[in-house]
Amino acid sequence: MINKIGFDLHGSDKGMEEIIKGLSLYLKESNSKSEFKLFGNYQEAKDLLEKYDLHQNDKISIVSTVSVVTNDDEPTLAIRKKKNSSMIVGATALRDGEIDCFVSSGSTGTLIAAGVFIVGRIVGIDRPALAGLVPSTNKKKPTLILDLGANVEAKPIHLQQYATLGNAFMKNVFQISNPEIALLNIGTEDEKGNTFYKEVFNELSNLPINFVGNIEARDVLTTTHDVVVVDGFSGNILLKAIEGTVEVFNNQLKNQFLKNIKTKISALLIKKDLKQMKAQFDYRELGATPVFGVNKLLLKAHGSSDSLAFKNAFRSADEIIESDFMKKITEENNGIK
Amino acid sequence: MINKIGFDLHGSDKGMEEIIKGLSLYLKESNSKSEFKLFGNYQEAKDLLEKYDLHQNDKISIVSTVSVVTNDDEPTLAIRKKKNSSMIVGATALRDGEIDCFVSSGSTGTLIAAGVFIVGRIVGIDRPALAGLVPSTNKKKPTLILDLGANVEAKPIHLQQYATLGNAFMKNVFQISNPEIALLNIGTEDEKGNTFYKEVFNELSNLPINFVGNIEARDVLTTTHDVVVVDGFSGNILLKAIEGTVEVFNNQLKNQFLKNIKTKISALLIKKDLKQMKAQFDYRELGATPVFGVNKLLLKAHGSSDSLAFKNAFRSADEIIESDFMKKITEENNGIK
Repeated sequence: MINKIGFDLHGSDKGMEEIIKGLSLYLKESNSKSEFKLFGNYQEAKDLLEKYDLHQNDKISIVSTVSVVTNDDEPTLAIRKKKNSSMIVGATALRDGEIDCFVSSGSTGTLIAAGVFIVGRIVGIDRPALAGLVPSTNKKKPTLILDLGANVEAKPIHLQQYATLGNAFMKNVFQISNPEIALLNIGTEDEKGNTFYKEVFNELSNLPINFVGNIEARDVLTTTHDVVVVDGFSGNILLKAIEGTVEVFNNQLKNQFLKNIKTKISALLIKKDLKQMKAQFDYRELGATPVFGVNKLLLKAHGSSDSLAFKNAFRSADEIIESDFMKKITEENNGIK
Repeated sequence: MINKIGFDLHGSDKGMEEIIKGLSLYLKESNSKSEFKLFGNYQEAKDLLEKYDLHQNDKISIVSTVSVVTNDDEPTLAIRKKKNSSMIVGATALRDGEIDCFVSSGSTGTLIAAGVFIVGRIVGIDRPALAGLVPSTNKKKPTLILDLGANVEAKPIHLQQYATLGNAFMKNVFQISNPEIALLNIGTEDEKGNTFYKEVFNELSNLPINFVGNIEARDVLTTTHDVVVVDGFSGNILLKAIEGTVEVFNNQLKNQFLKNIKTKISALLIKKDLKQMKAQFDYRELGATPVFGVNKLLLKAHGSSDSLAFKNAFRSADEIIESDFMKKITEENNGIK
């Protein structure tokens, strides 16, 4: 079977070129046999494929689209009014089975709405979730955190569904036989949190998953657990707090190294090691994740992705298709209806 | 007027000595005329005062107490059953006007309960809030964040009260004439967030404060605003995510510098500069903050405080007493009943 990967060429902060460059990098380092359908402005895409010497690759085709979804579009309106946009044409192709997977770095809100209203939800899942992969200093494989903000009016039942989805993902895509599922909370003791989180705790305890209890935000980057379940509002705050702190720290560190001749020599001596360290905290290394709860593979890439991040998004698409995750998730999900 | 500062000698993770050492450091660097009443085990306190050559200082006295509140105590039970503990005796002395301020690094839950049930709430404030001061790379004065978890079942009206309390604190203690008050949210646009946060946004817009709108978690450490208002559950996650990330980063950095001879030389060259940078992210530099909503000055110091943090907690006590914050807050508060 040849994987058919659809990719939205628009909506990325850094423009289309980073995506084509990312594809070029991916094809150089992998032996992917996949077909790539690129959704976007025909002329721009064609020129860039030529620039990166990909125009004669018969595995790559352009699906010409004429409009673009932006972050300013109201999601449900965008779905109705921008039927010719790269994102909506792509989502429709996914629904119709023309591609096995569709990846977009464009407007999160519209992508989720397209997942629900065009592609469709998995039976038994009420609300989709956005997930992110974050590194941990205490294990090789990343930690999956969900929801990061797809659903900001969560009910306890939704978090129960996220736990099941996260479990299936880490099991099938990352080959972890019995993923450890933790609940983000304000303390580690079982009875911690507010009424909402206490209810979620009890519900997760009754699921046929390896629920290991509460985890605090301070331990997310050093955890040995595989999945962290959280409501979309708090999850958004968690992820952005981590990202913001890493960024401030990196900037401050850079400023210290640039201070004077002594610190500049210091920088030269440790440059390589710091680069490795930074890579460990880099979301770009970790690829794209599905919009969980949609019944086909709809992947969200970070809006500020560069070519390295897009290279990994292409890799994620191949890996997730091959993991047979969608089939497994539908099976697993029969248990939580 | 001579300030009378009460200090709980128990409940700190690192033990009593760090507190006495902190007091010794504070007296060396300041010209505080305050009286210090230390609540705790008499013999242990006396021995430590001798060790730090403070036993002949007639501004310092020990209030002998016989039991200790721990983190395992159920708060409302601890108040009833541990009447002879350093924390409860101290809170009672605060209520009775024997001291102007009581500082504790012990159990947060019991301290808040003591604030509500022994000292009493400010009229018009329904639920106390825990606050923290965090640094920002874009201004000299720290940012006040509240609530950090005193109230994990917040209603929109509570956040309105926190905004007023935070406003009064930054105005009076940090001499900011018109503090900028922001609301933590999952996006910066006015209409962002869930039903709860949209309601809070509208309520804050109608208050007689300088409400500047939403702020995202990623911008907290670089903000130019003075106060960040958040519900206790999300606030707890925000702060712990920042603390955890800083800690992981510091540890990773240290590991890189210890890798080999080259990186060790690099470390020597930049040591001083990195120390300055770390100090900027160090909660210990920022002292203690009041349990907001209690009608007298009840201060919470970090449980893992060391002598440097305690030195700054003593400084905070003096500064906050002298700012006349309690009087001002009661006046300001008449507007929000």
